[in-house]
Amino acid sequence: MDGSERRAPYYRSVGREREVFRTAARERLPVLLKGPTGCGKSRLVEAMAHELGRPLVTVACNDETSAADLLGRYLVRGAETVWQDGPATRAVRSGAILYLDELAEAREDVLVVLHPLADHRRELFLDRRDEQISAADGFQLVASFNPGYRRGPKDLKPSTRQRFVAIALGYPEAEAEIEIVSTETGVERGVAKRLVSLASKIRSLTEAGLTETASTRLLVAAARLIGAGVPPRVACRAAIVEPLTDDHATARALGDLCDLGF
Amino acid sequence: MDGSERRAPYYRSVGREREVFRTAARERLPVLLKGPTGCGKSRLVEAMAHELGRPLVTVACNDETSAADLLGRYLVRGAETVWQDGPATRAVRSGAILYLDELAEAREDVLVVLHPLADHRRELFLDRRDEQISAADGFQLVASFNPGYRRGPKDLKPSTRQRFVAIALGYPEAEAEIEIVSTETGVERGVAKRLVSLASKIRSLTEAGLTETASTRLLVAAARLIGAGVPPRVACRAAIVEPLTDDHATARALGDLCDLGF
Amino acid sequence: MDGSERRAPYYRSVGREREVFRTAARERLPVLLKGPTGCGKSRLVEAMAHELGRPLVTVACNDETSAADLLGRYLVRGAETVWQDGPATRAVRSGAILYLDELAEAREDVLVVLHPLADHRRELFLDRRDEQISAADGFQLVASFNPGYRRGPKDLKPSTRQRFVAIALGYPEAEAEIEIVSTETGVERGVAKRLVSLASKIRSLTEAGLTETASTRLLVAAARLIGAGVPPRVACRAAIVEPLTDDHATARALGDLCDLGF
Amino acid sequence: MDGSERRAPYYRSVGREREVFRTAARERLPVLLKGPTGCGKSRLVEAMAHELGRPLVTVACNDETSAADLLGRYLVRGAETVWQDGPATRAVRSGAILYLDELAEAREDVLVVLHPLADHRRELFLDRRDEQISAADGFQLVASFNPGYRRGPKDLKPSTRQRFVAIALGYPEAEAEIEIVSTETGVERGVAKRLVSLASKIRSLTEAGLTETASTRLLVAAARLIGAGVPPRVACRAAIVEPLTDDHATARALGDLCDLGF
Amino acid sequence: MDGSERRAPYYRSVGREREVFRTAARERLPVLLKGPTGCGKSRLVEAMAHELGRPLVTVACNDETSAADLLGRYLVRGAETVWQDGPATRAVRSGAILYLDELAEAREDVLVVLHPLADHRRELFLDRRDEQISAADGFQLVASFNPGYRRGPKDLKPSTRQRFVAIALGYPEAEAEIEIVSTETGVERGVAKRLVSLASKIRSLTEAGLTETASTRLLVAAARLIGAGVPPRVACRAAIVEPLTDDHATARALGDLCDLGF
Amino acid sequence: MDGSERRAPYYRSVGREREVFRTAARERLPVLLKGPTGCGKSRLVEAMAHELGRPLVTVACNDETSAADLLGRYLVRGAETVWQDGPATRAVRSGAILYLDELAEAREDVLVVLHPLADHRRELFLDRRDEQISAADGFQLVASFNPGYRRGPKDLKPSTRQRFVAIALGYPEAEAEIEIVSTETGVERGVAKRLVSLASKIRSLTEAGLTETASTRLLVAAARLIGAGVPPRVACRAAIVEPLTDDHATARALGDLCDLGF
Repeated sequence: MDGSERRAPYYRSVGREREVFRTAARERLPVLLKGPTGCGKSRLVEAMAHELGRPLVTVACNDETSAADLLGRYLVRGAETVWQDGPATRAVRSGAILYLDELAEAREDVLVVLHPLADHRRELFLDRRDEQISAADGFQLVASFNPGYRRGPKDLKPSTRQRFVAIALGYPEAEAEIEIVSTETGVERGVAKRLVSLASKIRSLTEAGLTETASTRLLVAAARLIGAGVPPRVACRAAIVEPLTDDHATARALGDLCDLGF
Repeated sequence: MDGSERRAPYYRSVGREREVFRTAARERLPVLLKGPTGCGKSRLVEAMAHELGRPLVTVACNDETSAADLLGRYLVRGAETVWQDGPATRAVRSGAILYLDELAEAREDVLVVLHPLADHRRELFLDRRDEQISAADGFQLVASFNPGYRRGPKDLKPSTRQRFVAIALGYPEAEAEIEIVSTETGVERGVAKRLVSLASKIRSLTEAGLTETASTRLLVAAARLIGAGVPPRVACRAAIVEPLTDDHATARALGDLCDLGF
Repeated sequence: MDGSERRAPYYRSVGREREVFRTAARERLPVLLKGPTGCGKSRLVEAMAHELGRPLVTVACNDETSAADLLGRYLVRGAETVWQDGPATRAVRSGAILYLDELAEAREDVLVVLHPLADHRRELFLDRRDEQISAADGFQLVASFNPGYRRGPKDLKPSTRQRFVAIALGYPEAEAEIEIVSTETGVERGVAKRLVSLASKIRSLTEAGLTETASTRLLVAAARLIGAGVPPRVACRAAIVEPLTDDHATARALGDLCDLGF
Repeated sequence: MDGSERRAPYYRSVGREREVFRTAARERLPVLLKGPTGCGKSRLVEAMAHELGRPLVTVACNDETSAADLLGRYLVRGAETVWQDGPATRAVRSGAILYLDELAEAREDVLVVLHPLADHRRELFLDRRDEQISAADGFQLVASFNPGYRRGPKDLKPSTRQRFVAIALGYPEAEAEIEIVSTETGVERGVAKRLVSLASKIRSLTEAGLTETASTRLLVAAARLIGAGVPPRVACRAAIVEPLTDDHATARALGDLCDLGF
Repeated sequence: MDGSERRAPYYRSVGREREVFRTAARERLPVLLKGPTGCGKSRLVEAMAHELGRPLVTVACNDETSAADLLGRYLVRGAETVWQDGPATRAVRSGAILYLDELAEAREDVLVVLHPLADHRRELFLDRRDEQISAADGFQLVASFNPGYRRGPKDLKPSTRQRFVAIALGYPEAEAEIEIVSTETGVERGVAKRLVSLASKIRSLTEAGLTETASTRLLVAAARLIGAGVPPRVACRAAIVEPLTDDHATARALGDLCDLGF
Repeated sequence: MDGSERRAPYYRSVGREREVFRTAARERLPVLLKGPTGCGKSRLVEAMAHELGRPLVTVACNDETSAADLLGRYLVRGAETVWQDGPATRAVRSGAILYLDELAEAREDVLVVLHPLADHRRELFLDRRDEQISAADGFQLVASFNPGYRRGPKDLKPSTRQRFVAIALGYPEAEAEIEIVSTETGVERGVAKRLVSLASKIRSLTEAGLTETASTRLLVAAARLIGAGVPPRVACRAAIVEPLTDDHATARALGDLCDLGF
């Protein structure tokens, strides 16, 4: 889990996101990454953890994650009761980057526990141990958030949002995305170009009723199948069309786009 | 539970599903099988586990399955506390196929726990043990999903769907289905043909208000009863009509179709 | 709980239900009994358990029944932790008939746990013990379901229904019902006849706003009271009218029918 | 809790309820008492327990009562684990009257557990102990139910209702109620008469928007206050008007009725 | 918690509430105090406990209070399991006044547990201990209830309400309230008079959209601030206006009333 | 956690809030701070704790906080069971300021437990220990509340609100805010002025559909980024625009305002 021990992860910038992230880290300001599925939010965090030379602790937020899951708990081991730090506590003590993936999915009690960690106090209170921890140097709170769906009940509260410097990410420009697809999968540039062109057509289909559109992740999967010998049209249906929709008419329309491309 | 120790399960392909599945396995891409009740999704997984020579770990997803049920838990056994791996952990450690049946029924926390397993990381994090496991070679994540019902609240989130290569399955063509029914049950081809013809009529009744239509599974059950001596009309009512509807008028209409067929 | 040790329960067939049940048992197909309250579903199961010479394990399904209640659990007994099989596990191990009364009331997690038991696998997976059990010879899954009420949220899912051969039961014909009432209670045939005639009138009152109509069970209760000396009109009100409705106008109308009959 | 050890409770019949109850007890049929708040349902059960010479076990049903609360549970006492029978189990073993007060408030799982106790089986299954108990001679199941409110979600299911012989109770006739009020409280007949007359006026006010009307219980409370020296108008307001309504206009109207009466 | 050991609490009667309370206590009838926030319900109970020379046990009812919280529970203390009486059990055993503050907030299971305590039985059943306790002499059940808000779901059920003698309390007459404010805080009569006059204006503002109006409690707080040197207009805003409303327009209107008064 | 051991926190008054707070503390009246996100409520409490020389115990209220989390609980440590005071109990025993941040988020049972602490009784009842604690001298209850959102279900009940002296806070006047931004971050006055001017424009955009508007906290974050070398327009987008909205059109409009300011 120590980002610095791995080789630098592949991440291609789409704007000034690295500069803002780097400065926020220096200024001890929490960072919120906003963007759609598969646009590279987690990759950016991995890349920054590598650049800043800090360990990375990732927590996939969800409705069942309790404050105890983040902070830690007492475990009964035979006749002994031992305290086990949770991931947030570990990150705070060790000065790691604490990455809360899909923060809006977390329950409110989790968010509220993080508030004193996300302002000038930089403190975490372990109520079960009655212990207050100040964040070690280098600790940084990072969260991701997908504003595209989950409107309403699962929106982040202003009192949470306004604790973060927020960076909006989108899908990369065509040139950058072609580079990503071919670098990641080894397919020849021509195939990558056709996939990116197909994605661009799908992304412009605002009337197709898709909850989200084709992410870079899908293009990479299609390129992998093609590189391994699956006919491109079959690969695009399996890796792009079927993951995007269950509606027969929409699937047929997207399939036609695939056939046009290959 | 080791698929390779059993005789090859009977599975008849309906398209290029085996090729896509095989390539996705080689490329370490998770696979999502989409299709209606009783179309053979579980059979395909059993057949592929056999072909690929990997053990198969099946989890029937439901609303009550917690992340702990998948990952494992500490059990108190007398004075000792022992850790017991859950099915997902076992599959990840042993390089098995982990088959999540009816993935859309799983709670969100379960889905989120699987995210790092379903992308380039191929990792599982056991928070209770504070242990990170990398998937053994050969590990593959497979899930099934029935898009026909459960619209809305129980739809899979894009951030989950887009991690899978998806294969859409349907009911087999008439010829293939006749072969399946007679091979599975031993009834003579004529009976199988009439059952498939009956199913085809029922499947075309879009206005009958059925939640789902007659699956291959129902035809096999009817053929079994007939082969054991139950009069065909009685068998079709018990194995096809009554499982499909509780509405008296619909049941009568479907019953008339049965009488026409036999 | 061993059906074979009791005297044969009284059950009078209303159609070919015993033949279908018997064949499904031989063909290892699960059976679903559909029908209204008090029409004899449980009696049929008791009679078939007796005929087939198998023990009968009954589980009254409800919203609170968890998978653990069916499968079993670890119990702490002093310093020891012992496993206790639940009723489903016992039935699977011993080759009994497992009768799930009012299956639609069960929670989805319970249904899903039973899926591998209800198809060609005939297996039960005890996740807490990490143990897979194959059903002993003679094991059969039987469930009951009342389609009359509980529309909508509590409907059985197609993926559950299509695993069963389904038998629809109704109230018996007049002659059969008269025989049942007099055999069960010892009242003279004339009284039984008047009660069945009264029931027939009530059953035809579709506009009375009754959730369900007068079952054979109610007639038997009324006959018992009459046989014990309660005046017939008082007995019919207590055993038939008041259990059917709380509405004063409806109760008066049903009471008038009673007075006409006696 | 043994009804036979107390002096005979005061209960004045309003119809043939004692005869039906007595016969149902002899015929081993469960009894359901239906009627409004404070009409004497619990008193009738106490009186019948005394007459039949059986112990009485009362359970006040509510939304939180679980099956375990009725059946019993394992308790950890120091190093030992002991089983403690719940009230239903005790009643079944000892042949007592089990009185489930306000049955419609009970959760469905509780009702379902009682089903095999409420039909010809007269059995209780303790799943935690895997023990089946047949009811001792003299055991009788009695339940009460207030049909006046709680429409809809909390209605008893037909499959539960049709297991009972049901007795509808109402408020007593004027003469009987005067006798009850004066016997219970010792006030002179004239006061009791005026209170009953006041109750009769309030009960006829169907347009006052009262959820329930003035019960005999309220008259008894008012008579007690009056007997202890509180001015009748003050007593009627405190014991009758204020318990019935929080609405100022309604309270004033009811207060005027009190003033007219005294 | 023993009311008799404290000095007599200050309570000024607004009607015949003490007489009714005293008689109900003698006649062993439960008492329900109805009235708005801050009108002195708790003070009346304290005063009566003092007058009657009984200990006072107060329970602040809420949605999370379980029956076990009231009745008691087994606690594990090292190797021993000890029973700890809850407040209701203590009150019943010791003949105290049990005061259930805001009874309508309690869950239904709590209410139902109290039913046998609130009628002629005066008994409490501890299901966990299988123990029945008869209330000691002098035990009295008192509850408070604010009918002003919480309409509908949280209304007390008739079967609960009709077990109580109910006393409706309101805010005191001007003269009495002036006396209360000056006695409680020591401010001079002129200030108290102006505050009561301000309250009277606010209470007549039925169209201001306030959930509740200015209670005596608010006047006392304002008087305290004024007595400690805060300018009256600032004090009235902080102690009266801001606690009553968050709406800017309403706050301004109420503020203008304050300015007119001082 | 002892406020007096830290250097005086920076807090700039916006009205008479310190005087009212100070007097309420002396008069033992609880204080409620009302105001929007990031306006300085927590800073005011820190400053007052410092001025009054009292320790500060902060609890971030949320939907999952139970009464036990505030009061304390028994913990099993090996063979021993020890009681651990919760933060409220600690504050009450030690005479600290108990600061309940975002009180309206707390569950009702938590609020009700605090009621006897918030009136003349100043008592806390630990039901698990059956112990009543009187607040030490110097104890003060302080709560914060953001009336801007969370209308309806999460509004504070009048019976809770009317126990507090309430202080309404808003964003500071321009001059004060410029001083705060430059003092906190060290940016030159010109930058601070432009940021405050930008905030003032955003705050006047009532039609932009923002849940809350730009807080002082956001200006401080932007100033930090600018001070660290991030171009002002990029800094304002990351620190002000993106935290405020996910809507593309709104973000563009706010971005234009940023561009106009720098």
